[in-house]
Amino acid sequence: MESITLHNPLDMHLHLREGEILKTILPYSTDTFLGAVVMPNLKQPITDTRLAEAYYETIKKIANDFNPIMTIYLTNDLKKQDLQQAISKGFKILKLYPKGSTTNSSNGVENILDHKMQQILEIAQDLGFILSIHAESSGFSLDREYEFLKVFEYLSQTFPKLKIILEHMSDHRSIKVLDSFENIFATLTLHHITMDLDDLLGKGLNPHYFCKPILKTKKDKEMLLNLAITAHPKVSFGSDSAPHLLSTKLSSNASAGIFSAPFLLESLAELFEKHNALANLQKFISDNAFKNYNLSFKNQKTIVLKKQPCIIPESIACMDDKIIPLHAGKTLQWSLDKS
Amino acid sequence: MESITLHNPLDMHLHLREGEILKTILPYSTDTFLGAVVMPNLKQPITDTRLAEAYYETIKKIANDFNPIMTIYLTNDLKKQDLQQAISKGFKILKLYPKGSTTNSSNGVENILDHKMQQILEIAQDLGFILSIHAESSGFSLDREYEFLKVFEYLSQTFPKLKIILEHMSDHRSIKVLDSFENIFATLTLHHITMDLDDLLGKGLNPHYFCKPILKTKKDKEMLLNLAITAHPKVSFGSDSAPHLLSTKLSSNASAGIFSAPFLLESLAELFEKHNALANLQKFISDNAFKNYNLSFKNQKTIVLKKQPCIIPESIACMDDKIIPLHAGKTLQWSLDKS
Repeated sequence: MESITLHNPLDMHLHLREGEILKTILPYSTDTFLGAVVMPNLKQPITDTRLAEAYYETIKKIANDFNPIMTIYLTNDLKKQDLQQAISKGFKILKLYPKGSTTNSSNGVENILDHKMQQILEIAQDLGFILSIHAESSGFSLDREYEFLKVFEYLSQTFPKLKIILEHMSDHRSIKVLDSFENIFATLTLHHITMDLDDLLGKGLNPHYFCKPILKTKKDKEMLLNLAITAHPKVSFGSDSAPHLLSTKLSSNASAGIFSAPFLLESLAELFEKHNALANLQKFISDNAFKNYNLSFKNQKTIVLKKQPCIIPESIACMDDKIIPLHAGKTLQWSLDKS
Repeated sequence: MESITLHNPLDMHLHLREGEILKTILPYSTDTFLGAVVMPNLKQPITDTRLAEAYYETIKKIANDFNPIMTIYLTNDLKKQDLQQAISKGFKILKLYPKGSTTNSSNGVENILDHKMQQILEIAQDLGFILSIHAESSGFSLDREYEFLKVFEYLSQTFPKLKIILEHMSDHRSIKVLDSFENIFATLTLHHITMDLDDLLGKGLNPHYFCKPILKTKKDKEMLLNLAITAHPKVSFGSDSAPHLLSTKLSSNASAGIFSAPFLLESLAELFEKHNALANLQKFISDNAFKNYNLSFKNQKTIVLKKQPCIIPESIACMDDKIIPLHAGKTLQWSLDKS
């Protein structure tokens, strides 16, 4: 039977939440990924080393072989010693949320260009941090990422030694920053490279396809997909998988986030095979990240996928409610070889 | 107290549905409007004169003073005698749904340009019908109306004596057809002239703002609003009010349609006042429609609005479920003077 072997898959953008949700969803990532960049936008955001350590321990207690790559929620309150402490513990990613841009971002940065933030980023650059950015302005939904590009230009030129990641790139107009600025990198989700606005609202309205940044045009999807299947050296896979209880999705004010963690590798194998690009999947799912983030781990993980259909479950029970995975009920052509 | 008097308000695009929903919602229109163009996309579409007569009688039984302006759902099965019969009963509007374009449009027209449809429209032109069009292609959501404009160009030139209405205009790129083609007119909804895509999905996702055509950009909203407040002579008000039970809105496949029928005149008064355009409201809400559709009724209706706050209810009970009106819970500055 046809199979693919993947070494040390990494999910460079993952929401694990906390409490019961964390316990329910974590196995979907740990089954297939060696590690993941864990987002800090909990109800109480992970704004310092102490909180990051506690969160790290919580995750490790459930999945000891999994490598959570912790992020610190960037706020104006961070001081030099806070950044030094974080780096000393190996927490080297700062996550920048523009205030109000997505789920639990109310503590985010109001003005990235103010003096205080400049001082913090200067120190972060000196200490070797990576700056991960939810890159959206507060403008019109479909232009938010595009409008934010000028911030990348400014940051790249002001902090040329700071590695900056444009998280979940969603707009084809952003691609040029990868070539224009040496220190700018990107992550891509499965949903932004395979779906567009019509999937969300072209027929009925499907809240399970509602995410930030919003799904965009067919052209955006296709050009971003091309970055993925060619394994552009500055691009890594980051699912942005974000679980929400069904009750918050079926609401007059539905939460943004797509729970894609189950079946990511199976879906990517199917996608890359369709585009005759299976040979590039290893780079996209792991090698590029190791290089660009300068990563190393004590353990390794080898995943074998075989060409055999599997079905994504309709829902996953959680807290007397349920979480609906991306493409619930769909049959995929690849499955995990657990033998 | 400040007040406005409106004569014979007409809603030139209204979904009244049937059964319990019809009984629940009809009073919201009959309280304030002299009449309305009643859409034919029921579960069993109103595809001929017999069905239109029965539907007309059903409505009249509930609201005898209300003037339902019936529409016939355009299908390839319509024959010359069907059209003659409809006209003889005073049913002079044909509604064209491209197949699959919106709620209950599966019986719609597959190819507007085929020979059979051309013959039907030729007869319709000769008999003096008005052709109302849900003007959307099957392309990308935000371009569907724009892509459809070439059909208007073709129809206008092929049938120069047929009055054609671009229903619920939603894209600023459509405005030019009003000036380019003498026989093309339009209706505007309240939601397309006051809301944009960000209202649907800019923060949380709000299924109560999900409609077809989809809400578009701020520029579209502003340019369409300008048509309304200047009472462009080829434009009439048509709410496209479309009730859906809450259970179908809070769904993984939510139905398209905004229930705006309650408080339409109050909302329009507030909107036109804000733009110093109250003097044009009478034309937009009635006079333009009387002229463009060549209407006359046996009765009259005078509505007085006074500058006194009113609150839109949170929901309206219906069939062990509820219907959520547009802007539920909002306070408006104008209310109906029932004295």
